[in-house]
Amino acid sequence: MKSATEIVVRYAETDKMGIVYHANYLIWFEVARTEFLNKLGFPYEKLEEKGIMSPVIKVDIDYGKSFTYGDTAVVYTYISKNTPVRTEYSYEVYEIHDNPETDKPRVSGKTLHCLVDATTFKPLSIKRSAPELYQAYEEALIKE
Amino acid sequence: MKSATEIVVRYAETDKMGIVYHANYLIWFEVARTEFLNKLGFPYEKLEEKGIMSPVIKVDIDYGKSFTYGDTAVVYTYISKNTPVRTEYSYEVYEIHDNPETDKPRVSGKTLHCLVDATTFKPLSIKRSAPELYQAYEEALIKE
Amino acid sequence: MKSATEIVVRYAETDKMGIVYHANYLIWFEVARTEFLNKLGFPYEKLEEKGIMSPVIKVDIDYGKSFTYGDTAVVYTYISKNTPVRTEYSYEVYEIHDNPETDKPRVSGKTLHCLVDATTFKPLSIKRSAPELYQAYEEALIKE
Amino acid sequence: MKSATEIVVRYAETDKMGIVYHANYLIWFEVARTEFLNKLGFPYEKLEEKGIMSPVIKVDIDYGKSFTYGDTAVVYTYISKNTPVRTEYSYEVYEIHDNPETDKPRVSGKTLHCLVDATTFKPLSIKRSAPELYQAYEEALIKE
Repeated sequence: MKSATEIVVRYAETDKMGIVYHANYLIWFEVARTEFLNKLGFPYEKLEEKGIMSPVIKVDIDYGKSFTYGDTAVVYTYISKNTPVRTEYSYEVYEIHDNPETDKPRVSGKTLHCLVDATTFKPLSIKRSAPELYQAYEEALIKE
Repeated sequence: MKSATEIVVRYAETDKMGIVYHANYLIWFEVARTEFLNKLGFPYEKLEEKGIMSPVIKVDIDYGKSFTYGDTAVVYTYISKNTPVRTEYSYEVYEIHDNPETDKPRVSGKTLHCLVDATTFKPLSIKRSAPELYQAYEEALIKE
Repeated sequence: MKSATEIVVRYAETDKMGIVYHANYLIWFEVARTEFLNKLGFPYEKLEEKGIMSPVIKVDIDYGKSFTYGDTAVVYTYISKNTPVRTEYSYEVYEIHDNPETDKPRVSGKTLHCLVDATTFKPLSIKRSAPELYQAYEEALIKE
Repeated sequence: MKSATEIVVRYAETDKMGIVYHANYLIWFEVARTEFLNKLGFPYEKLEEKGIMSPVIKVDIDYGKSFTYGDTAVVYTYISKNTPVRTEYSYEVYEIHDNPETDKPRVSGKTLHCLVDATTFKPLSIKRSAPELYQAYEEALIKE
């Protein structure tokens, strides 16, 4: 499964270069992940209500052409790796007028996640603590 | 008591106007409040550890001359009102090269706070739940 | 004209109280203002392309019931005052499941704007520099 | 040269997990980079005044133990690679009470930068456009 999330650039997200500040793409990735999990049928807030959190443990981002106020981004999101203890999301960000068939993504990135107990922050096995989520990840997986 | 807090403008805090984005002054006020409470002897994190939170319930900000990257702000902070259930902080923001005797603050504002139970969000009397803090506020109060 | 803008709460917008950090409502106001101006037929980025900017010079916010991750906000936005040199926007923020007929807004606020030359930051008359925008504001005005 | 920058955690930087939101470390890296360049004698704002900008083109971050409100971070910053067209900064983030001799950094990362013309965003050779900065980078370089 590949999920597409539209994000209208906020003025607040720009910096004095006149473009979107580089840290904000991580926020867009998180917005896209929220929508991905909703589509998968596992809203993240339900996971947290069960006392499980899924922090980010590693990120990589490559920045190409920039975005600015007035642009609308489309973030394509998918699961690129899934193990019993780690899930890797991948993201490709286009402007809504770009052509994903022929254009390169303007920004692309990966985030790696584990599961932890919300109270103790102790790591949990995704496969054992949230077996249905793990299975859904398996089915959604797009290997690279 | 009036507390002075220096804040070096972050690039991330600017927007495409080339100046500090207006919402970020609320973050500076919070940084200044943290330092004010430390100086008063009541670090805010200790309050939260006791299960008490102090949310903002009202803000007013007046914006004059702007700040940009390369500037250092000085936020002068004091308690301008204190009642058993409400505390009002006032802030005056200068650039470090401004003269607070002769220049007007570039930005000024007020934030109003109550106390709530961290679990239920039910309002608490400051005077009864945190009597020593209330007393310290009374002594630090600068009436306008 | 009253414009309604839906905003899905971002995880990044929450703080350790578990609720939306108070400064972020100013960002939501700005997102709502962007949509208001698009609906009015005067996209803000077009104004900036003409060398005119519309900075915020005053804000007031009242905070009631909080928002958290999983919530969707609806920001109702309108022009509450319009003079040749100042425009006041008003905002009422509800959760999407609230009833605006019977519920109070969770958060409400006002932002006051002027126009300035983008290069010199010198104030401009809205009525003279952007007469069509001024006229559109007049027609959209909802007096309180 | 390795530069140490202290950063007091802001309440605004936390999220509902109770810890610093992962995107904010990129902002800390930028604050640390600003101080690094000041120490090197090349304040970044002077570079931009000359019509040159240094955008981020790649980032990698590894997250370990988290930070929260009440903590003070220390970001150790150095140049890990320097070519005529690319500069790589590395960052190691400790809590002020950690021991950098024996503890692992809680968070570590790298950011890769190029130089561009501020008006056209066209890439520039650092070596040719800012030869003194390039030379300072060479001397400050800590190879890994």
